Amino acid sequence: MKKDQFILGVIVSNHFGVLTRVSGLFARRGYNIDSLNVGETEDPGLSRMTIIVSGDDYIKDQTVKQLAKLQDVKRVELIPEEKASVREMLLIKVRVTRETRSEVTEAVNIFRAKVIDFNADAVTIEVTGHTSKLDAFVEFARTFGIIEMCRAGALAISRGSTAL
Amino acid sequence: MKKDQFILGVIVSNHFGVLTRVSGLFARRGYNIDSLNVGETEDPGLSRMTIIVSGDDYIKDQTVKQLAKLQDVKRVELIPEEKASVREMLLIKVRVTRETRSEVTEAVNIFRAKVIDFNADAVTIEVTGHTSKLDAFVEFARTFGIIEMCRAGALAISRGSTAL
Repeated sequence: MKKDQFILGVIVSNHFGVLTRVSGLFARRGYNIDSLNVGETEDPGLSRMTIIVSGDDYIKDQTVKQLAKLQDVKRVELIPEEKASVREMLLIKVRVTRETRSEVTEAVNIFRAKVIDFNADAVTIEVTGHTSKLDAFVEFARTFGIIEMCRAGALAISRGSTAL
Repeated sequence: MKKDQFILGVIVSNHFGVLTRVSGLFARRGYNIDSLNVGETEDPGLSRMTIIVSGDDYIKDQTVKQLAKLQDVKRVELIPEEKASVREMLLIKVRVTRETRSEVTEAVNIFRAKVIDFNADAVTIEVTGHTSKLDAFVEFARTFGIIEMCRAGALAISRGSTAL
């Protein structure tokens, strides 16, 4: 996470217009969404979004207020990074040769990552963790050649035994 | 993945209106996005979305065609599930007691999951894998009590050594 980024946990109705309303709110104001994730919750009628936004205190304040007013938004919470577990996922396909494969799989172990596919020319790897860990893995992979990668927006869950 | 679901890999310009345009396209037609993920690629000017949609062949066809017409959409590809590695991530906080904690951590090992936070009353776990594996873990956790969970939309990367 960068210094000016903040994390929003948003509980919304599981309704097809809600993603457009939420992203539209940001687009209209010119606020940039760095990452957005939407997935199921323990309640089938509700989804949970984790949104990472860059901005100052004014933008932070406005975002929370405006989101709370939206139809289908049930709850909005700022999740302070120091009180949350923040995790990202990366799938990355790295070019390998017979000579370099063992070097790549060694890094997989060091990063506690997982090989999910491989053939003679490429290894596909799943890495999870903090942004900085994923960035480090991407940097490492670059020296071998990145064929393809996709990265999910961060998920954040509060530390301790309470819920959002 | 359910029978009528399909996976789209979409390369878009890293621009704040693009998420609204993409989700708006679905909302206007009443097509439901089951999950959506947007994150960085190896090119800082481009983002990659993985979108899971429910629908028949007509909807599938229309979605690809309409997305390709959108401003800021550079490439759209249908990713057949049998030719892809599809992975999801789940963060889940499970209620535990001194008596049940070892049962939960045993399941963590079986599922090749990771404990990312814990205290006297709760364990927070990261699980990655196919939808069915995550569903199974959620089902297991329900017997102990789910305090909170958040789930990222699926990521999909093609098998083999070629790129999207």
